[in-house]
Amino acid sequence: MLTRAEARARDAADPLAQFRERFMLPEGVIYLDGNSLGPLSRDGLAAMQHVTAHEWGEWLIGGWNRGWYDAPERIGGQIARLIGAEADEVIAADSTSANLFKLLVAALRSLPEDKRTILSESGNFPSDLHVAEGAVQCVPGARLEVVPRDALADALGAPVGCLLLTHVHYKTAARYDMAAWTARARAAGALMLWDLSHSIGAVPIDLGAAGADLAVGCGYKFLNGGPGAPAWLYVAQRHQAALTNPVSGWMGHAAPFDFTDDYAPAPGMRRWLAGTPPVLGLAALEAGVALMLEADRDAIAAKSAALFDAMAAIGDALGLECISPRDAAARGSHIAFRHPHTYALCQALIARGVIGDFRDPDILRFGLTPLYLRHEDIVDAGEILTDLLAGGGWRDPIFAQRRAVT
Amino acid sequence: MLTRAEARARDAADPLAQFRERFMLPEGVIYLDGNSLGPLSRDGLAAMQHVTAHEWGEWLIGGWNRGWYDAPERIGGQIARLIGAEADEVIAADSTSANLFKLLVAALRSLPEDKRTILSESGNFPSDLHVAEGAVQCVPGARLEVVPRDALADALGAPVGCLLLTHVHYKTAARYDMAAWTARARAAGALMLWDLSHSIGAVPIDLGAAGADLAVGCGYKFLNGGPGAPAWLYVAQRHQAALTNPVSGWMGHAAPFDFTDDYAPAPGMRRWLAGTPPVLGLAALEAGVALMLEADRDAIAAKSAALFDAMAAIGDALGLECISPRDAAARGSHIAFRHPHTYALCQALIARGVIGDFRDPDILRFGLTPLYLRHEDIVDAGEILTDLLAGGGWRDPIFAQRRAVT
Repeated sequence: MLTRAEARARDAADPLAQFRERFMLPEGVIYLDGNSLGPLSRDGLAAMQHVTAHEWGEWLIGGWNRGWYDAPERIGGQIARLIGAEADEVIAADSTSANLFKLLVAALRSLPEDKRTILSESGNFPSDLHVAEGAVQCVPGARLEVVPRDALADALGAPVGCLLLTHVHYKTAARYDMAAWTARARAAGALMLWDLSHSIGAVPIDLGAAGADLAVGCGYKFLNGGPGAPAWLYVAQRHQAALTNPVSGWMGHAAPFDFTDDYAPAPGMRRWLAGTPPVLGLAALEAGVALMLEADRDAIAAKSAALFDAMAAIGDALGLECISPRDAAARGSHIAFRHPHTYALCQALIARGVIGDFRDPDILRFGLTPLYLRHEDIVDAGEILTDLLAGGGWRDPIFAQRRAVT
Repeated sequence: MLTRAEARARDAADPLAQFRERFMLPEGVIYLDGNSLGPLSRDGLAAMQHVTAHEWGEWLIGGWNRGWYDAPERIGGQIARLIGAEADEVIAADSTSANLFKLLVAALRSLPEDKRTILSESGNFPSDLHVAEGAVQCVPGARLEVVPRDALADALGAPVGCLLLTHVHYKTAARYDMAAWTARARAAGALMLWDLSHSIGAVPIDLGAAGADLAVGCGYKFLNGGPGAPAWLYVAQRHQAALTNPVSGWMGHAAPFDFTDDYAPAPGMRRWLAGTPPVLGLAALEAGVALMLEADRDAIAAKSAALFDAMAAIGDALGLECISPRDAAARGSHIAFRHPHTYALCQALIARGVIGDFRDPDILRFGLTPLYLRHEDIVDAGEILTDLLAGGGWRDPIFAQRRAVT
């Protein structure tokens, strides 16, 4: 196990150490839930003050000519740099679920009727499966097939036109080999659609090198874009002309201010917009993405692995079952343990200032976010976790009282 | 024409006068574009500071248990009071375009195949027609019929299952008689879907009394909810169980935190959510709606009419053709004039601090927003407009240079 002295030495040598000061973490909190909602950064706060008081307050309607109209493409171009995409292959828009719906319907329509099966994984992040259920109802002949992970390769047969996978699993943190699975999909004649919600900002991603076709992802986890931040989507250049947005709103029109009755999709990524872009939310997202772009990607990966190893050793010492892959290349940037009473344990940890989360029925998750966590935070969290488990402090009935939301 | 002295007397007696101080209007600006983007209020600024620094910054993930999760229904319940709906008939979500898509697809699916025609008006706000074009492609047998306003009654025949109308026209401000048209739709066996984007917060609305079935609307115009604010949708209680959201994302699930593979729609309005709600944007919207709820609805209607009459008289004196209805009950809360050079004229007005907007090819619009406009603002705007037209100041070539967005 990592000692406090070793942790401090690592923190002193950490090339990412300066980033912690860029975040406004509350006093007395060890925030291990950045995989669920990234914290507020100083730049994020400043961006929100600027977009509200200065842009909305003083520019008023003129803001649309001073950066708002272009924000979805501009931020998309910045996100592209985090995922190995070209600047004109990404746009910020709507929610992850809405973006997935748009891409799935568009992809299914581009396929022959006998190729309109979406294949995905049981236990995938539920919204992906729910949205896919909805998308297939919009396209004649389309269907959804959901199989366990170990049956995916065999199920990737002739009827499958789209393989929908989440790169990093929200429970276990298991990460797919993006290049290998994209190649498998291509060999089966299927489009590869990645959900990168749990991996963008967390692990190295190269959609271009993998030859991926489509992707979606959220803005509020490792990108620190704020609660319910606008999401984004990616369409490889080779598909952009052929795919059109089923939610054909005016902001995706080729000439929205011509105010014509008939819809004509904009060229490039702008067709994936529907309604008026959420300017306030986009400002926070842009600040989060800019901060992430400042950080060295290799340093993030190395520190994520080190934080994981430190937390895994604590779990091992406590006899907790770790269900995340031990191989850093095969996982994201969180760690998951099994415990029969994760809800109460999680609440007891929160009461002691260690914020993680749990997922029914028995999973305890800790986000390991290199930008603002110190190695010493893991030591501190480990001590509190050890104390709670040894002393049984989590058994207080107050910690078993369920809240409305988790 | 209204004299300055008369305008001042009216302002002194204005029961809404106190609301102007609640907004942060820039110095030297007469803002006649609140029908396009409402200005920032002091409460809106405070709400954004609170949701950013305090809620996101300090509550972190815990915010979902402290008001964020319920925000879409809570704000929906507040919006309901502005449109004659029950609190459990409205929810804040996504964009107007996305909400319209969801409702149209759901409505079409609920209808027999020979009843799946959407009828709407040519020259309707383009996004409504564009989205309807997209929606009919998601439902077998569905089609869109678009006819001029004066042909609508005749076109409302047996195949029409949904009449889609915008209550107040974005160009002319002409307002449909909601009760009469809803009754006409019902007589034809069609669902009535109102787009209230240009009327909510501007004119009296009673969806319940009219017996309307469905409605959508935006949050960034008369509700002052901020640029690209979340939108909202309305489903009459009698339809709520039968209609389901085609964009079936996890936040519309009956039990999103059970994380089950299969989609099961939430009861009530919550099923109309898709992705994670946009918390930051919702905070600004909530502040705008709360401010609007403080104001007396009759006083708003009376002042809107008075501001219109004052501006119409200026237009008459200048020989401008007013294309908005003179009857207050037949219009919204803006006024539209025709002029052969509205683009340059509009830019010249902006350069003098009078912010209106234009719509191709020849329409000049002025928003008449009772909460923060004074009668004397209309006199001031009229003097500047008169000066520009008389002196030809708008002919300076600089004012004809087109900007990217209008």
